[in-house]
Amino acid sequence: MLIVKIGGGAAINLQGVATDLGRLEEPALVVLGANAVRDELARRLGVEKRVLTSVSGYDSVYSDADAIDLIMMSYAGLRCRRFVELCQREGVNAVGLAGIDGRVVQGRRNRGIRVREGGKTLIKRDFSGKPRAANVELLRLLLDRAYLPVISIPIADEQGAAINSENDDIVNVLQQGLHARAIVQLIEAPGLLDDPDDPGSLVRTLERSELERREQQVQGRIKRKLLALRRLLDAGAAQIVIGDGRVAEPVRAALAGHGTTVR
Amino acid sequence: MLIVKIGGGAAINLQGVATDLGRLEEPALVVLGANAVRDELARRLGVEKRVLTSVSGYDSVYSDADAIDLIMMSYAGLRCRRFVELCQREGVNAVGLAGIDGRVVQGRRNRGIRVREGGKTLIKRDFSGKPRAANVELLRLLLDRAYLPVISIPIADEQGAAINSENDDIVNVLQQGLHARAIVQLIEAPGLLDDPDDPGSLVRTLERSELERREQQVQGRIKRKLLALRRLLDAGAAQIVIGDGRVAEPVRAALAGHGTTVR
Repeated sequence: MLIVKIGGGAAINLQGVATDLGRLEEPALVVLGANAVRDELARRLGVEKRVLTSVSGYDSVYSDADAIDLIMMSYAGLRCRRFVELCQREGVNAVGLAGIDGRVVQGRRNRGIRVREGGKTLIKRDFSGKPRAANVELLRLLLDRAYLPVISIPIADEQGAAINSENDDIVNVLQQGLHARAIVQLIEAPGLLDDPDDPGSLVRTLERSELERREQQVQGRIKRKLLALRRLLDAGAAQIVIGDGRVAEPVRAALAGHGTTVR
Repeated sequence: MLIVKIGGGAAINLQGVATDLGRLEEPALVVLGANAVRDELARRLGVEKRVLTSVSGYDSVYSDADAIDLIMMSYAGLRCRRFVELCQREGVNAVGLAGIDGRVVQGRRNRGIRVREGGKTLIKRDFSGKPRAANVELLRLLLDRAYLPVISIPIADEQGAAINSENDDIVNVLQQGLHARAIVQLIEAPGLLDDPDDPGSLVRTLERSELERREQQVQGRIKRKLLALRRLLDAGAAQIVIGDGRVAEPVRAALAGHGTTVR
């Protein structure tokens, strides 16, 4: 089987992905991002992103109840159902599931961030956390009957509350449970680039040792991405392809080796 | 098993329903309304409801692409996932499904409304239609493993496109496929009232003959409601209770006979 992680950018060709999925000859599961839809909806509703700075100086997004409402409307609502619709029109029997549905992605809520406020150190706890396990029984039930699960945030915490989480981490726990033969990650770039400003600097293949070496050299978002890839290899992924989600046949092109292949 | 139709009013006690569902000793399925959430979101986004007047003088809501987006955000997104969360916190393993997911509710798109525009008669076709069948295989798969399906619009048309539909009609096709022993409908009133302005005028029981008699005497929304109830009896429902969704234990109270019992 295949796990396809679709980035949340506005330029991703969802129609092309749905068409590709209709031609696949193996079971597949999708993890769907929706950043662009979420940010656009936040703008229209006038909901501002809250960012907290911890006592140790790190910034992080604070997922309050409004942020979870927004995720439910944009990820689990608009983006997921429109993608399910595209799939259905291509004859793919997609079923959209937020992680909380059937606790299909079960996590652990973050314990809180230490912040300074009015001269005091406080613990601020939001609705975010890390996935710990997938409901493999439910996913197998669907996959064995040719349904395509389309998974999005929010996931469930220990008590069943809806929490925000990172899709890279969600893919990781899904891979631990499902052992897909390959994982395709579709982004708004030709793959991993040596120089983010130069589309010609595509990294064609990336071995584990090289992954570790690069991880030491970079910071921020790209460091987290490389770490996520390394963890995915540890979770037993034989092949990961990071491909361009903007092209005509995004999944087919990635499986044909276009993009960055990690193994 | 039980089918619970939850009205979309803001005063419905969803927490109470979730708690009741956690105490049930039989499988159940929910059809979830979200009018109030939809209308509030439309107001915040500045999306106006479009109404068409047909050549024969009937007004009907025109469900354009924006209206479907709104339904996806409010019904399938916010309302459904928040209710799933309430259920999960009560130990009920709820799975939210829009009708398009796995084509769990499959319908037929309306052929269009004849309108006069600029001196011409045109056929205006929107994204709305009537449910025709439920995916009983998928629902049984979930029900047999103690999942609680929570179903909302949009449903799928013949081609898999997302369309708007009436929850009364959705309950009807679900009952045809699932043969629930009882159907509970939770509304923002003590039950059916003889006088809508007098909560004391509750109709305690309604036989089929009485239903038909009343249907002849009324118009509009209430006539459609009575027709839907009659069709539900035709679909094999042994017992329907229309109960107050605003009380502490809405499902338990309805099953204990509070409200209007139709048989």
